[in-house]
Amino acid sequence: MDWETLAQDLTLKNDAKIVLLVLDGLGDLPENGLTPLEKASTPNLDRLAKESVCGLTDPVSMGITPGSGPAHLSLFGYDPLEYILGRGILEALGLGVEVKDKDLVARGNFATLKDGQVVDRRAGRISTEINARLCDKINPNLPKGSSLKISLFPGKEHRFVVRFRGKGLSQHLSDADPQKDNKPPVPTRPLRPEAKETANLVNEFIEQVTKLLKEEAKATTILLRGFSQYPSIPSMNTLYKITPAAIAHYPMYRGLAKLVGMDILDVKAETKEIFTTLEKHYAQYDFFFLHYKKTDAAGEDGNFRAKVKAIEEIDPFIPRLVALKPEVLVVTSDHSTPCQLKSHSWHPNPFLLRASSAMKDKVNRLSERECSQGHLGRFTSLRAIPLMLAHSGKLKKFGA
Amino acid sequence: MDWETLAQDLTLKNDAKIVLLVLDGLGDLPENGLTPLEKASTPNLDRLAKESVCGLTDPVSMGITPGSGPAHLSLFGYDPLEYILGRGILEALGLGVEVKDKDLVARGNFATLKDGQVVDRRAGRISTEINARLCDKINPNLPKGSSLKISLFPGKEHRFVVRFRGKGLSQHLSDADPQKDNKPPVPTRPLRPEAKETANLVNEFIEQVTKLLKEEAKATTILLRGFSQYPSIPSMNTLYKITPAAIAHYPMYRGLAKLVGMDILDVKAETKEIFTTLEKHYAQYDFFFLHYKKTDAAGEDGNFRAKVKAIEEIDPFIPRLVALKPEVLVVTSDHSTPCQLKSHSWHPNPFLLRASSAMKDKVNRLSERECSQGHLGRFTSLRAIPLMLAHSGKLKKFGA
Repeated sequence: MDWETLAQDLTLKNDAKIVLLVLDGLGDLPENGLTPLEKASTPNLDRLAKESVCGLTDPVSMGITPGSGPAHLSLFGYDPLEYILGRGILEALGLGVEVKDKDLVARGNFATLKDGQVVDRRAGRISTEINARLCDKINPNLPKGSSLKISLFPGKEHRFVVRFRGKGLSQHLSDADPQKDNKPPVPTRPLRPEAKETANLVNEFIEQVTKLLKEEAKATTILLRGFSQYPSIPSMNTLYKITPAAIAHYPMYRGLAKLVGMDILDVKAETKEIFTTLEKHYAQYDFFFLHYKKTDAAGEDGNFRAKVKAIEEIDPFIPRLVALKPEVLVVTSDHSTPCQLKSHSWHPNPFLLRASSAMKDKVNRLSERECSQGHLGRFTSLRAIPLMLAHSGKLKKFGA
Repeated sequence: MDWETLAQDLTLKNDAKIVLLVLDGLGDLPENGLTPLEKASTPNLDRLAKESVCGLTDPVSMGITPGSGPAHLSLFGYDPLEYILGRGILEALGLGVEVKDKDLVARGNFATLKDGQVVDRRAGRISTEINARLCDKINPNLPKGSSLKISLFPGKEHRFVVRFRGKGLSQHLSDADPQKDNKPPVPTRPLRPEAKETANLVNEFIEQVTKLLKEEAKATTILLRGFSQYPSIPSMNTLYKITPAAIAHYPMYRGLAKLVGMDILDVKAETKEIFTTLEKHYAQYDFFFLHYKKTDAAGEDGNFRAKVKAIEEIDPFIPRLVALKPEVLVVTSDHSTPCQLKSHSWHPNPFLLRASSAMKDKVNRLSERECSQGHLGRFTSLRAIPLMLAHSGKLKKFGA
């Protein structure tokens, strides 16, 4: 029996509240002997750790570095090796593009076409401003069928997302990308018979855009890859009978939360707004996903001091979470982003869970090494949801 | 998505080197309060443990005692519950018998046939010398077809390996063994239609050998079981894009390494030769499997003092490994062989991994009990390869 089936059998609705605070990319490695978590002054997280059961989690499995998609799916209880998210969808979520059920999206590059060859797959990394201008130029000039609407959404530098909205679209398309410079353009090919018409549509679209770009200096064509449609994922409500809400400012995390059926609450950028929003909507939901980005951003920049500061910035808000008296409060990260590596990594995440039924262990601090001594041991993030449901009384006995 | 698919997607080739030192059967139980690892003086392994991240591994899963085959497959990243090695193949590997792609091998017993009954399935445990004489007597007297060559390879006491080399052989054969004394001989039966001809060949061969043995005192027939062909296992290079080499003196481990596509380097029996061979070939490969047998042999003998000595014998060579500056250095065992049990066991293996991206934990010594406090926690040996690949920068991010 798989977890989805088990969850639907065993979960029950009650009034207990679960708050999951994700400090993105929190886990790290030591610099001069201490990690940012060990270095930071965190009296409130320390107190919380003392009142909690702790452990270390692996988002996918040991050694695997997850992207934000797989890392969050796992935390929400969805096996990331089973629910594979297309690159186009992830890019669209990251840009905050609205994607509906039947839409087809893809990642795009502006590229330089010269004498029938793609001579620069990134169009000399044109500026984000030029990119926005090009999208504005293309969007109104695409022929609109009654049943098809195509839109470009600018990203950074040469990157954009294209969304095809229409009927009978298929995601089973090969990349329209020669993958290397100085090769002729490659049309998309249908990977299944039912994708033939969509492939023709996409190839026509590329031709149209190339014509519109004729007078440009560098961005004279486009390449498309990672064609994908909205994935079919059972909602958290269907699986767990909870009513979940997401409090996240960045489009990527709002998008991921929407994928699993969370309500997306409006929240401003400042850190305090996460907590103000939670307090405002606390009565309406029984599961809250709170996302804090600054820890990850500091890790990606390799800025150890900024990471310490980001941790110290969130710490004073912890008492506001505790004051709400949620039956279950979890603080953890989706993946580690060590400053040393300046990127996501495979290192495990510190994890703490506070609930009246939690076994208090000897962990006195939310840190990588303290949590390794916790009562929960080392486990996959996939078990976070069952633990939260159990401690909030939302999981019945299995078998008699 | 399974690990094999994921590995092929995520691995990338780089120049980083991985050294995996397997101290066979290292894990043990205490005698007078201390295990051999705790008793031994190991200043170099201690220093290494301090610089490493540590943990405990289960080769298959808790409680399962693995043979050398499953234990090593797991360490090489192959699920031993999926890649089942036939007994014939393992026995052949252990004797150093060359097995090619289409060969069929089986384990054999000399046995006593009297009045149409197998009265002793082990022929009174004839000596290894008699065994060798019998094989020498049989081998030149077997009829050779142009497309079939059969060879016997003597093992210890009454045991041997038979290799059928020819065309169209099938491994789907039942054991030609009554399993109990005082039963009539049992011919092999084809378990699939395509094995019919092979079954006839094997049964003819048993008859011929029985005729040749007519004048012997005890060894008057043979029993065959565990028919198996060379298994189809994707190579480590295919899965991980590494170029692996094995430095192992014993045939079994050389054979296992060959099964997963390692180059087998020549190495003499003395312990120091492991390291001399590594140094000599260090530039040519990016993954080295080093095998040290003495720890297991002492455990099998139930000789606690010999096990301590075997550990102390390897310790001074550790600095030579460190001096090569491999990006990843792992020291562990394939399985435990407690002196108390005089056999392989299900107890977990101490594991240490040294790399610049490894979280140094509080483990100060490579021992069963210290490693249980390590940052890696307790995990399956199957995760050793993903960890080594991750720490050597050979694994890309999964998803976006």
